[in-house]
Amino acid sequence: MKLNIAVLPGDGIGPEVTKQAIKALQAIALEFDHSFSFTHAPVGAIAIDETGNPLPEETLDVCEATDAILFGAIGDPKYDNNPDAKVRPEQGLLRLRKSLGLFANIRPVKAYDTLIEKSPLKKDIIQGTDISIYRELTGGIYFGEKFLSEDGNTASDLCLYTKTEIERIAHLAFKAAQTRKNKVTLVDKANVLESSRLWRKVVTEIAKDYPEVTLDFLFVDNAAMQMILNPNQFDVILTENMFGDIISDEASVIGGSIGLLASASVGDKYAMFEPIHGSYPQATGKGIANPIASILSAAMLLDHFDLTEEAAVIRKAVEKSLLLNITTPDLNTEHTVSTSKVGDFIADYI
Amino acid sequence: MKLNIAVLPGDGIGPEVTKQAIKALQAIALEFDHSFSFTHAPVGAIAIDETGNPLPEETLDVCEATDAILFGAIGDPKYDNNPDAKVRPEQGLLRLRKSLGLFANIRPVKAYDTLIEKSPLKKDIIQGTDISIYRELTGGIYFGEKFLSEDGNTASDLCLYTKTEIERIAHLAFKAAQTRKNKVTLVDKANVLESSRLWRKVVTEIAKDYPEVTLDFLFVDNAAMQMILNPNQFDVILTENMFGDIISDEASVIGGSIGLLASASVGDKYAMFEPIHGSYPQATGKGIANPIASILSAAMLLDHFDLTEEAAVIRKAVEKSLLLNITTPDLNTEHTVSTSKVGDFIADYI
Ligand SMILES: CC(C)[C@H](C(=O)O)[C@@H](O)C(=O)O
Ligand SMILES: CC(C)[C@H](C(=O)O)[C@@H](O)C(=O)O
Repeated sequence: MKLNIAVLPGDGIGPEVTKQAIKALQAIALEFDHSFSFTHAPVGAIAIDETGNPLPEETLDVCEATDAILFGAIGDPKYDNNPDAKVRPEQGLLRLRKSLGLFANIRPVKAYDTLIEKSPLKKDIIQGTDISIYRELTGGIYFGEKFLSEDGNTASDLCLYTKTEIERIAHLAFKAAQTRKNKVTLVDKANVLESSRLWRKVVTEIAKDYPEVTLDFLFVDNAAMQMILNPNQFDVILTENMFGDIISDEASVIGGSIGLLASASVGDKYAMFEPIHGSYPQATGKGIANPIASILSAAMLLDHFDLTEEAAVIRKAVEKSLLLNITTPDLNTEHTVSTSKVGDFIADYI
Repeated sequence: MKLNIAVLPGDGIGPEVTKQAIKALQAIALEFDHSFSFTHAPVGAIAIDETGNPLPEETLDVCEATDAILFGAIGDPKYDNNPDAKVRPEQGLLRLRKSLGLFANIRPVKAYDTLIEKSPLKKDIIQGTDISIYRELTGGIYFGEKFLSEDGNTASDLCLYTKTEIERIAHLAFKAAQTRKNKVTLVDKANVLESSRLWRKVVTEIAKDYPEVTLDFLFVDNAAMQMILNPNQFDVILTENMFGDIISDEASVIGGSIGLLASASVGDKYAMFEPIHGSYPQATGKGIANPIASILSAAMLLDHFDLTEEAAVIRKAVEKSLLLNITTPDLNTEHTVSTSKVGDFIADYI
């Protein structure tokens, strides 16, 4: 297969980890006789520095002209504590999601047997956990109208959803459940929010098309608790943008390190693959960033093109590195190896 | 001291647990020669059933005429899955908070040594945890304008904050930090939300009045992760309404049971004390609900009137019941006792 892949390394540790994912993809291409080409483009703080724009026109053009996007990370502390900054790195990511119509962010959460001791949670709580989180990604309070009064003393954000926005991701979630344990849990705050009540209504309607799938409801506060008390109760979680952001980062503790979690952001035309971790600026350039989340994002990319055997090979290589403890300091305190050494091992193993 | 206390037992297990808190307060009155009187009033689903209104005028009158309010729980599943219900139990609680100006919800989270094995988290993670969460309670998306289009296909909620709303709770949080470990962590989503950027700006300004207190910032997604990875890093957490709802329920897993967590909701004139757990309808009337959160809410009530010695006696009695394993099934699998037996033990001990 021939694939043109856009590579948007972004900020902080983004470039280092993305490089390892590319190594893995190149190894796969060699092994399975595919042809993968990579086109790099800037996004985020680095793009602001270069062009003043967190998502330059050319970067968007590159994304639209390629088959899939491999994304690194975004964010720079110099913008976080400056409430007056007019341009921010995150806008690059948000505009990218919106422009490409990437409305569903899919985040698998698994407890790896080899890492089970690393989790802050007890073994009997997390053993067997296998959750797929479907987070709506281009609506809600992230994209609703923002307002700041002229005197700077009042600010607001609007959380708005339409039936269509809810339907399209709900269908994806129910279809995923059909290939899994036939259970969807809708996480919302329907006892308070009008938008959540719309979610509940629309999703209840759609559930009728999938009679073999059980639909459950959980208020987001309770879900935040249940995720830790009993993560094994979940199969597919379906939720809106902001709740999905919170719940999926929370769920990352189950696996022992956020450095393991990959995600796919898909729409009708485009698809982007990225680790769920951030730009981790304190670690930049130190060779301590865990590249596995980015490498597993590459595996999700392959899955997206039905290269399931290839994706499985990547996952096997990752598991091997975990088993042999060829890992970065987030997973290992004694014989840690560097970001690029982990990448080399995985590529070689492939 | 003479105190008139309004008792709003509410729904589900609310009445059973509140009864135990009253027992504890009566025991304190006897022991310390105070005079506490209790006036009951309906709220929530039960009030809808009786009057059609989740917060009847007379209930509000009772609250305004008393010194403090003891609240049980609210909510009934028959309303949750009915997106078209026009009147809902939760409105009673939300209107109460708003009408009485209870803008700050204070939720202490502690790891009890006697219960440390009960938590889903590992002992070395939670040992020593002592957090005080300051959640804004009368603003944000809970109270912003709600909208549902006529065709029912679009819904929205507005998250709005003013400088004044942020300032008053921020001052409380910084003052609390001064009596603790001098650290405030502001939890927000300033990389996405305009309202969060206002929080960051206003709180940064206020921090200057408290030079000995360190102010930290954490994005809510990261906070949801850090709460489990390393809860000991927190002292006072300050946050807006919705994030506070999620983060504090999540934090409840640290102590081993949400049935232990009390909260105080305070404003300039009134103060209300309530367990953070919900109405737990499946348990209603079975005598299995843990009354400790409600009893500890009574202790917070006493603290509020500077009856610190009395509050300490309640807490000691609670710890004794935990130590002797005189507890409900959420904490104990072998020799569980009923809700009212736990209440009796604690009252007797006092
Ligand atoms: C960087 C930030 C805007 C982003 C989000 O909140 O969506 C990130 O946390 C994520 O989850 O991808
Ligand atoms: C019942 C509900 C409206 C309420 C809230 O979300 O505030 C509850 O979860 C709480 O935290 O007190």
